Amino acid sequence: MQDLLFHNSQLDEEILDSTGWNVIEREFQPAKQHHKETVFTLGNGYLGTRGTFEEGYPNDSSATLIHGIYDDVAITQTELVNCPNWLPLVIKVGGERFRLDSGEILRYERRLDLRLGIISRDVSWRSPTGHTLEFHFERFVSLADQHVLAIRCQITSVDFDGEVSVEVAFHSDPSTQGVKHWKTLNHNGVNNIIWLHSQTIHSTIQLGMAAKLVFEGEDIAPIQLHHAECPKLQTNFVIQSGQTVSLEKIVTVYTSRETPTPSELALIRLVTMPSYTTLLAAHIASWEQQWHDSDILIEGDLKAQLSVRYNLFQLLAAAPRYDDRVSIPPKTLSGFEYSGHIFWDTEIFILPFLTLTQPALARNLLSYRYHTLLGARRKAQEAGYSGAMYAWESATTGDEVTPRWLRTENGDMVRIWCGDIEVHINTDIAYAAWHYWAYTGDDQWMRDYGAEIILDTSVFWESRVEWNAQRECYDIRHVIGPDENHDRIDNNAFTNLMVKWHLQSALALFDWLKQAYPNVATQLEDKLNLVNQRLEKWAEISNNLFVNHDHETGLIEQFEGFFDLEDVNLADYEPRTKSMQGLLGVEATSQKQILKQPDVLMLLYLLRDQYNHKTLKANWDYYNPRTDHSYGSSLGPAINAILACDLNQPLEAYTHFMRAALVDLEDVRLNAAKGVHAASAGGVWQTVVFGFAGIRMTQFGPVACPNLPSGWTRLKFRLKWRNEFYEFDLAGSENTNYMQQHLVSSNHQSTIEAAA
Amino acid sequence: MQDLLFHNSQLDEEILDSTGWNVIEREFQPAKQHHKETVFTLGNGYLGTRGTFEEGYPNDSSATLIHGIYDDVAITQTELVNCPNWLPLVIKVGGERFRLDSGEILRYERRLDLRLGIISRDVSWRSPTGHTLEFHFERFVSLADQHVLAIRCQITSVDFDGEVSVEVAFHSDPSTQGVKHWKTLNHNGVNNIIWLHSQTIHSTIQLGMAAKLVFEGEDIAPIQLHHAECPKLQTNFVIQSGQTVSLEKIVTVYTSRETPTPSELALIRLVTMPSYTTLLAAHIASWEQQWHDSDILIEGDLKAQLSVRYNLFQLLAAAPRYDDRVSIPPKTLSGFEYSGHIFWDTEIFILPFLTLTQPALARNLLSYRYHTLLGARRKAQEAGYSGAMYAWESATTGDEVTPRWLRTENGDMVRIWCGDIEVHINTDIAYAAWHYWAYTGDDQWMRDYGAEIILDTSVFWESRVEWNAQRECYDIRHVIGPDENHDRIDNNAFTNLMVKWHLQSALALFDWLKQAYPNVATQLEDKLNLVNQRLEKWAEISNNLFVNHDHETGLIEQFEGFFDLEDVNLADYEPRTKSMQGLLGVEATSQKQILKQPDVLMLLYLLRDQYNHKTLKANWDYYNPRTDHSYGSSLGPAINAILACDLNQPLEAYTHFMRAALVDLEDVRLNAAKGVHAASAGGVWQTVVFGFAGIRMTQFGPVACPNLPSGWTRLKFRLKWRNEFYEFDLAGSENTNYMQQHLVSSNHQSTIEAAA
Repeated sequence: MQDLLFHNSQLDEEILDSTGWNVIEREFQPAKQHHKETVFTLGNGYLGTRGTFEEGYPNDSSATLIHGIYDDVAITQTELVNCPNWLPLVIKVGGERFRLDSGEILRYERRLDLRLGIISRDVSWRSPTGHTLEFHFERFVSLADQHVLAIRCQITSVDFDGEVSVEVAFHSDPSTQGVKHWKTLNHNGVNNIIWLHSQTIHSTIQLGMAAKLVFEGEDIAPIQLHHAECPKLQTNFVIQSGQTVSLEKIVTVYTSRETPTPSELALIRLVTMPSYTTLLAAHIASWEQQWHDSDILIEGDLKAQLSVRYNLFQLLAAAPRYDDRVSIPPKTLSGFEYSGHIFWDTEIFILPFLTLTQPALARNLLSYRYHTLLGARRKAQEAGYSGAMYAWESATTGDEVTPRWLRTENGDMVRIWCGDIEVHINTDIAYAAWHYWAYTGDDQWMRDYGAEIILDTSVFWESRVEWNAQRECYDIRHVIGPDENHDRIDNNAFTNLMVKWHLQSALALFDWLKQAYPNVATQLEDKLNLVNQRLEKWAEISNNLFVNHDHETGLIEQFEGFFDLEDVNLADYEPRTKSMQGLLGVEATSQKQILKQPDVLMLLYLLRDQYNHKTLKANWDYYNPRTDHSYGSSLGPAINAILACDLNQPLEAYTHFMRAALVDLEDVRLNAAKGVHAASAGGVWQTVVFGFAGIRMTQFGPVACPNLPSGWTRLKFRLKWRNEFYEFDLAGSENTNYMQQHLVSSNHQSTIEAAA
Repeated sequence: MQDLLFHNSQLDEEILDSTGWNVIEREFQPAKQHHKETVFTLGNGYLGTRGTFEEGYPNDSSATLIHGIYDDVAITQTELVNCPNWLPLVIKVGGERFRLDSGEILRYERRLDLRLGIISRDVSWRSPTGHTLEFHFERFVSLADQHVLAIRCQITSVDFDGEVSVEVAFHSDPSTQGVKHWKTLNHNGVNNIIWLHSQTIHSTIQLGMAAKLVFEGEDIAPIQLHHAECPKLQTNFVIQSGQTVSLEKIVTVYTSRETPTPSELALIRLVTMPSYTTLLAAHIASWEQQWHDSDILIEGDLKAQLSVRYNLFQLLAAAPRYDDRVSIPPKTLSGFEYSGHIFWDTEIFILPFLTLTQPALARNLLSYRYHTLLGARRKAQEAGYSGAMYAWESATTGDEVTPRWLRTENGDMVRIWCGDIEVHINTDIAYAAWHYWAYTGDDQWMRDYGAEIILDTSVFWESRVEWNAQRECYDIRHVIGPDENHDRIDNNAFTNLMVKWHLQSALALFDWLKQAYPNVATQLEDKLNLVNQRLEKWAEISNNLFVNHDHETGLIEQFEGFFDLEDVNLADYEPRTKSMQGLLGVEATSQKQILKQPDVLMLLYLLRDQYNHKTLKANWDYYNPRTDHSYGSSLGPAINAILACDLNQPLEAYTHFMRAALVDLEDVRLNAAKGVHAASAGGVWQTVVFGFAGIRMTQFGPVACPNLPSGWTRLKFRLKWRNEFYEFDLAGSENTNYMQQHLVSSNHQSTIEAAA
């Protein structure tokens, strides 16, 4: 397994610094441009901007994505659109354009400071005609004010005396993977200000952006304005050898999702903006506050430390702070893949981190599911079912937006069934809602939002199950489980056992609701027709769902007939650089016992308190070797890592963990160029907390049963449980590969030292 | 004559205060509402706003006119349009709307402080349900920043405890005498800000207005916004007895004549605006600066003092400061009459004041004529003439916009010939350009602008005169002179003798140009084909224009055949309240020796250095009794006053003078409601300076030959001659009705005491 872990180890020095806070790129490598654009993505919960260079390159893949800004498109129906690019800042030195691919780079360093939320870049550049200048770029998207973005550029002349010109602009109409989505309503400028007022072509969402160019901390005029395709400002100045000049591009952005007048508001905000330094200070203070609750400190393993923080950074950068009608796409706001649609990735992989460290953000994400209930009901009705049937892929309304067909690499069209039958999404959402409630004690949210989600999806399950008279049990047929290598299957164990949990939980919830908030219970009873007969039916279903579970061995069959499929030895196919499905084809893979990601094991993780060691071990031993860990789903490794911890296999746990933790920083799956792996990032947090720290939730709060990887001398983090923080400060041994920690009960604000 | 002078004397107390700076209205008189709206007009050279009350009344006649904002309209072709109303500020006290026509007015005073350029209003009001409050309103249109307008309202509760609501708005689509000219492109608001983006329907001029409501000096939010027809803000607060609350409505306005982005610029400026107090201070300082050079101090005659200042105030308020493509309409920016078209009023009546006290403003107005030369050339060509033939009524392009037909009070349609044949406008403009040059010494302007005006209008005259072989002289037939009671006449003495002056001046000018700027002379020679033959022709024409001038008596016939018309005794028609033309009809009046305004006498004034006392006396004695002084043209009285001074008839001079000076303040002609009489206002200044102070321009600068009216103990003013200020401080006698002053030579900055 070390192939994956260390195949990029020459990069260690490149990305690591001794603080554990800085992602560093020490060399400009054009071939890695798109990967690094993903890595250096900044976000503030409102928008995300890929780490494209300010000066722009023909091959770059710039993107600014704003939560909720979808527009219609063929096949995937709707997509999160690439918003006008706010980055452009072009510098010409004596007429020569500053570019990394012309002249000579004497020194280069790019740095993402995770603690401060800032990208900076230092370039010492010799121009083609031999002038030497030093450039320091700094960029942030304010976490303190989500509508404010800023770039600062400091230019120091080493040996150049002459004219420098600086041009800042918006690129008004970027494409989203080749599709144009914007119509410019108005763009213009005055003095040192430009603005842009655009609208998405189909969804008619308006966007207003404004920018000003500040020179040496002062608004300056006159600045030349060019009105052509895009709003643009230009200023010229003379620089002398040894002189440093500082320029700032301050940008504001609003959409019609926040205000009926985004363009004007962007202008109003821009012209009343405090200085760059003041904005930066507020931004840093906001990140400080985030890290105070969400940081994980790891000592003894700098690479783990940095990569964990990187994953948390990207999740915090993507989580909507002031909007509960959007959610986090699988690629956050850092890439176009999956069209910005919302999957179970949010609820199952990302949410635990937020529920237990930033519950207000978790609440926003779950409320998105409440606001999309109408779409889920439409989907149920269209499919001939009752209640709420959530979309496998969801966007603004909650209506199903999964593409029905996709073109494979060979050019074949493949029917995608997920939107029709990957029904476990319904129970995933209920699971997340339930656990948010359990961990936060937010009764109000459960009363006003969560209950209706959990109950109306239960109504759906009631209509979805089928009575099998022969076996005298309930079947759930024609589904897809988490392992998407096998579709249109019957009685997926994950689905059926999660539905069992779902219906039981719904009944418990409704009992609580009737006691705690009888009026609300009555309203929901009326609205969803929750008559006793129905509740009894749910109980009956939950007790009679079909599962092929060999109670003697503990082995659970993934779905009916799985064990009859052809068995293969995955090791026979190594080494490879694509998934087994990519290698063998969709149809052939579906006929074999090859898993894209954990399925039964996923179930055993989610319901880990219900299954014993024997069951876990039996299924682990069976399914783990049959799973495509390297190029299957990126959702798998973290789950495997946690279960490996539970099974006391720390080395295997660490291998899975690092595969997840480095997926973006080291481009483990060779697809980081397409955007951050958000579910994997959430899984990384779960591995550290539920795996290595061995956190179990008890009625008295979270309790640690640590199992730290080799070399980790300290693991420290906080969890918020029912409005109180619990601080875990766990010590490991430097020299043992294998650790057994005692169960340690923790309490809020207390610091626990675990014995080695 | 005293009928007119004193028929309103009961108002003296009303309008006068002891400082000579304040126009005061001590009583709310609904019947005089429209007249007072004119009187309380504010302007800053960019826009004018009538003195309509902030709270609005069904019958009010609000207007905000901005220089150059014309739109197409039937009959008068183009008109200065009523811009969106920025005044509305509605106050409700415990649900009762503050209105002067409901409840009870316990105390009322409105004041126009001419020195500060501020209107204020104090009202002590008892509401219909008996609550007493005091309101203090203050309004200015900033002279320091022409795009800034402001209202402050202070509310003091005497005995009311409860809720007050304040609503501020723009009225987006006011009519211009019944015609709608605006299309709203966008209007909206955010926080305490509203804005409006409009466009004129035909001329597609854009206008942007923004306003904010400031409460106790602070921006406040939230304020309720109402989006319906108009952008509107509302705030509510609680007031206690004895408490004073202060509100400010700050407004910015731009049009596409100044910026391609008026709406955004209005917003940008608004949100970066300093406090009301700071704005007010800058505004006051600007007026202070204007008055420093343009004030006339009169001691011993408070009414003359105030009314003179009032006239100067309205001229300074109307003169464009930063725009040389507009000019001052006859009603300034205070009323709709004459559609905002530009007449000779500017050049002959208004300009001397500006040329001799604010030459930069005079230059702007004259440059307007340069920029409209193309229109004047088109007019000449269409009429079959050469050169430049200025429009009698001009707007943006200089094309003729005089209506061809007008409906009389009887409903008859009358053909208006002015646009076709009131050709003296060409020489009026040349006259003003020449005198601007002579008084300022601005050779550069004459070289770059003035010369082409004077020369190309000369080209026109050459094509317009006709050789009369019988009489062996040149005729100018089929014209209208200044006295419009007689149209389609031949050889109007005013026109012919002014043309004579014009051609002689043009020849002198071209000689100068050839010496001073030979290149420019050559360019103009080529452009206008100023061959020697042509110049010789001008000389020949100027020496041979027909004029019926009895050199024995000195009497000049106004036009060929005037003496043959029926003579009438105007005294027979007194008393009357309309013009003789209005009384007798257009056709009948034209057949009689009844003058609407001085014609031969006008000539004798303009060319006063060319005619001796005998000629002046003979023509005065003949034409003065035949002129409709009371309801003829408002352009007449000031000219008569000056000539009366020259004839040593100070009482008559004073009578004519006050008729002009009070035309708006005391509504002497009963038409002040339609707007300020701008030409009359300019005439008032000319009467004081050229009449009472007896200023004559010599080659050594202005020289005073004072002839102060009875009671004037002191007359003090400054004149700017060739870049130096000349200060005149003339003393009169308190007790004589009749004064003979010595000719006093003055020099710059010297103070002259005239002997009694």
